[in-house]
Amino acid sequence: MAMGTPPLVDVLSPLDPEEFAVESRAAVDFIAGYYRDIEKYPVRSEAEPGSLRRLLSDEPPENGEPIDGILADVQQYIVPGLTHFQSPNFFAYYPFNASTAGFVGEILCAGLNVAPFTWVASPLATELEGVMMDWIGKLMGLPDCFLFSGGGGGVLHGSTCEAVICTLVAARDRALNRLTHEGILKMVVYASDQSHSTFQKGAKLVGIPPSNFRVIQTSAAFSYGLTVDSVRNAVEADIARGLVPLYLCATVGTTGVGAVDPVGELGELAQHYGMWLHVDAAYAGSALICPEFQDCIQGVGLADSVSMNPHKWFLTNMDCCCLWVTSPAVLTSALSITPEYLNDISHGSAAKTGMIDYKDWQIALTRRFRAIKLWVVLRRYGAVGLRANIRRHVEMAKWFELALKADDRFEVIVPRRFSLVCFRFRPRYEGDHTVDALNRKLLNVVNASGKAFMIHTIVDNKFVIRLAIGATMTEMRHIRDTFELVQEKATEIGQDRD
Amino acid sequence: MAMGTPPLVDVLSPLDPEEFAVESRAAVDFIAGYYRDIEKYPVRSEAEPGSLRRLLSDEPPENGEPIDGILADVQQYIVPGLTHFQSPNFFAYYPFNASTAGFVGEILCAGLNVAPFTWVASPLATELEGVMMDWIGKLMGLPDCFLFSGGGGGVLHGSTCEAVICTLVAARDRALNRLTHEGILKMVVYASDQSHSTFQKGAKLVGIPPSNFRVIQTSAAFSYGLTVDSVRNAVEADIARGLVPLYLCATVGTTGVGAVDPVGELGELAQHYGMWLHVDAAYAGSALICPEFQDCIQGVGLADSVSMNPHKWFLTNMDCCCLWVTSPAVLTSALSITPEYLNDISHGSAAKTGMIDYKDWQIALTRRFRAIKLWVVLRRYGAVGLRANIRRHVEMAKWFELALKADDRFEVIVPRRFSLVCFRFRPRYEGDHTVDALNRKLLNVVNASGKAFMIHTIVDNKFVIRLAIGATMTEMRHIRDTFELVQEKATEIGQDRD
Repeated sequence: MAMGTPPLVDVLSPLDPEEFAVESRAAVDFIAGYYRDIEKYPVRSEAEPGSLRRLLSDEPPENGEPIDGILADVQQYIVPGLTHFQSPNFFAYYPFNASTAGFVGEILCAGLNVAPFTWVASPLATELEGVMMDWIGKLMGLPDCFLFSGGGGGVLHGSTCEAVICTLVAARDRALNRLTHEGILKMVVYASDQSHSTFQKGAKLVGIPPSNFRVIQTSAAFSYGLTVDSVRNAVEADIARGLVPLYLCATVGTTGVGAVDPVGELGELAQHYGMWLHVDAAYAGSALICPEFQDCIQGVGLADSVSMNPHKWFLTNMDCCCLWVTSPAVLTSALSITPEYLNDISHGSAAKTGMIDYKDWQIALTRRFRAIKLWVVLRRYGAVGLRANIRRHVEMAKWFELALKADDRFEVIVPRRFSLVCFRFRPRYEGDHTVDALNRKLLNVVNASGKAFMIHTIVDNKFVIRLAIGATMTEMRHIRDTFELVQEKATEIGQDRD
Repeated sequence: MAMGTPPLVDVLSPLDPEEFAVESRAAVDFIAGYYRDIEKYPVRSEAEPGSLRRLLSDEPPENGEPIDGILADVQQYIVPGLTHFQSPNFFAYYPFNASTAGFVGEILCAGLNVAPFTWVASPLATELEGVMMDWIGKLMGLPDCFLFSGGGGGVLHGSTCEAVICTLVAARDRALNRLTHEGILKMVVYASDQSHSTFQKGAKLVGIPPSNFRVIQTSAAFSYGLTVDSVRNAVEADIARGLVPLYLCATVGTTGVGAVDPVGELGELAQHYGMWLHVDAAYAGSALICPEFQDCIQGVGLADSVSMNPHKWFLTNMDCCCLWVTSPAVLTSALSITPEYLNDISHGSAAKTGMIDYKDWQIALTRRFRAIKLWVVLRRYGAVGLRANIRRHVEMAKWFELALKADDRFEVIVPRRFSLVCFRFRPRYEGDHTVDALNRKLLNVVNASGKAFMIHTIVDNKFVIRLAIGATMTEMRHIRDTFELVQEKATEIGQDRD
C-alpha cells in the first residue's frame, strides 16, 4: 500500500495536551476570578432583550482566534449580564450548589468525555453510577428496596423532569399491559397545587389527556401538604366515573413553600388503588442525609420511585438528578429499544448479568459521565461536610425567620422546615387588599437594588416573598445584610404611603 | 437585632477561590496527562461486571479527604476500565468530539453554573443561545425560516432524543387542536429502517400507539435512503384505514450506514399530507458547513424542524444538540407551563417581546449554559477550522475506502458519503452463509486487540463492520495502522480455516 497522505489532513490538533493545559488553566483562573469578584455584580441581571445581539456580529466568525480574547469578551459582554446563581446573595428558586469538588467532577466528566449508554460503551462508568446511587440512597436513608443491593436501583438524569417522564411512562405502560392502548385516555395523574409543574408537563408529554390531571388543593391547616382524605376523595370520584388512577406525586419540600406531603400514608393509599407513587425530593432530599430530617420520608418504602437533585443543595454543579426505583424491570421494559448497532456481540447473553445498559433507564441515548462528579463530591467533603453544608443553611434560615418574627411589620406565612423562608410585609395599618401590592413593590425594589435576588409565590391567594437560602458562598453576614435590606426597603415603601 | 451567629455556620467554604484554582488546575493537568497517554490503554474496556464494585466500599465515606488521593484513584480504578471515546483509535458509534475549546466552554458553563430556563433567570445566556443558533444555522446553510432573524428559531438540547420528543409533542398537539384526545390513537409516525431508534422510542414515549409506528424498508438500490414512493404508499394505506399521518423523519447520515434521505422530496410529500417533517442530521449535519455537502439538504426549507449534534463532529464536548424549528409558537404552545413562582413580575408584559423563556422549548425546566461552549468553539476555531476538522476525517475515510477496494478480500457495502466506511471481509472461497460469522469473528478479534474499537450493523441481512472516523486526535497514521490491523486479523482468520 503506497497511497500517500492527503494534503492538509493532520494540520489541526484541537486536543494537543500542552495547548489544552495552558488554555484550560486560563479558563480555571477566569472562574476563580469570577468567584472572587462575584459580589461586585448586581445579583439579578438588568440586561434588556437585544442588548447582546446588537454587540455581536450577525455572521459566524470565519477564522479562529486565541483564547485570551475570547475570555476577555466573556468577561466584558457576558458576565455583567448574567443573573448570578452563585452569588452569596442569590435567594431565588432553589439553590444551585457549585463547589470545587463538583467542578473538578465536571472537569473529569467533560475531559474524559465518555458516554455510558450501554455497558460495553463504558463499563466502569456504568458501574460507578450504580455504586454512587447506592451510596447516596443510603446516606438519604432510603430503604434497601431502592438500592441495587436490595433489588431496586438508581440512575442519574439531568433533571427531575426527565426522571418524572420515565416513571410516568413506566407506570403508563405497566397499566397498558392490562388495558388496550385506548386505556391511555382513562388514566389519571394526581398532584397537589404545590407540586412542581413538571408533573403536569410530564403527564401531558406522555399522552395523558390534560383533563385527567388532578390538582388537589392544599391548605394552611396542613402546612400546604396533601392529606390522604383529599387524595382518596379525588381517586374515588374518578373511579366512579370509570377512570383509572395511575400515578400520584408526593413532594418532600415543594418549590413554592417547602411543604412536605405525608409520604407513608400516601404510599398506603397508592398501593390500595394500584397507583404508582413518586416522591419528588428534588430540593429537600439533600437534607435527608441529616438524621433530624429523616421523619420527612417515613414510609417511603411504599413508593415506587424517589428523585433528588444533587445540583440543588448537595455541592454538585449542574446537571444531576438521582432517580431510584424499586422495580428496574418495569422502567427498562418501558424504555428499552435496541437497534442492531447497539447489540453487543462481544459478550454472550449469559455473561450479561450485571451489565446495566443505562440507555434503558432514561429518555435519551447519549448521556454524560455524571457519576464521576458525585464520586469526587462524596469523597472530597464526606457525609460530614455535606451535612454541615445543609445545616449551616438551615441555621441561617432559622435566624432569618426569627428576625422576621421579631419585627412586627412582617409575617412568616408558612412554618419554615428547611432553608426556605416564606414571608410578607404587613404593616398594621394596611387592609388585606393592599398587602399584595405592597409586597410586589417590596420584592421589586429589593431585587432592583442588585444586592439580593428573591422570587415570589402565591398561596391562599396571598403574594408571598420566598427567601431560599443555599448558595455555596452564602455566609451569615449575607443573611444579616439581606434582612437589613428588606427592613430598609420596607420602611421606604411604608413612608411613600404616608 | 442581636441574635448572634449560630455555631458552625461559616466553617465550610467549598468555593474558596484559591483552593478552587489549585484543585481545578490539578484536574486540568490530570486530563492533559490522560490525553498524552491515551494510546497506552486498550480502546475498548475489558472490565467485568462487579470488578469496580468489589474495590469500592459499600458505604459512602463519612469524612472528606484531599483532592490528590481522589485523582490518584480515578487514575488507578476508573481510567483503565473506561472505553476511551477520545482515543484516536475509537471508530465505534459516531465520534464524540472533545476539543480544547469545547472543554474551555464546559469549564465556563460549569463554573458560572447558571440556568437559563427563563429570560429573567439568565438574560444574556438566553440571548447568546439565540445568536449561536442563528450562527450555526447559517454555517450549515439552513434557510432563513429556521433562524430567529427569519421568524423561526433554535434551542440547545442535550440529545437528539429530547429534540425529537419536543417536535413529536408539538406535531401531536397541533393535530389534537383539530381532533379530540382520542385522535392520539390514530396518529402515525413514519421512519425508515435506518432511522435512529430514538424516533421509535420517542413516539412511544409521547403516547403514539406502538402499532402506529411505521418502519419503511430501504434498499441498496437507493443507498438505503427513503424513497418518496415508499413513504407515499405507506401514508395512503394508513389514510385508507382511517389513520392520521402525523410525523415523518428524514435523516442526513443515518447511524447504521450513513444514508441520506431525499429531504426536499419528502418535504413536499409531508406538506401535501399535513405531516410534520423532522430532519435528523445528528452526525452529518456538521459536514453541511462544507459547501461540498450542501446538496444533502436541498429543499430543507420544507421541513418543520432540523436537529444536529455539535457533540458528535463539531469539536464540542458532550452534551449538545441543536434543534431548529420554523414555527416556535407551535413548539412553545405544546411545552409551556408556567407556575406562579416562575412568573416574572419585574417586566411588564409589553416589555416581554424578545424575552425567550427556553423552558418552553424543551422537556426539562433546568438547563445548562451550553451556548457559551458553542461561542468558544466557534470563535476559537472559526468556520475554517471546523471545516478542516470535517475534511481531514472525510479524507481519511476516503483513503480507508480505497485501501479496502485495493484488497480483493474486502467489500465496501455502502458507498461512503461522509467519514463512515461500512465494509466486510469476504474471501472468494467462502459461501454467503459463512461470511457473517467470519465478520463477527473479525470484529471481535480486532476489538479484543485493544488497538481499535468498531461496531457492526446489519443491512440487507448482512453483518457489516462500521469504521466511523472522527475522533479529534485521529491522524492518518492511526487509519493506516487500523487498516493493517484489519488486514492482519483477516489473514489470521483465513488461515484458521485452511
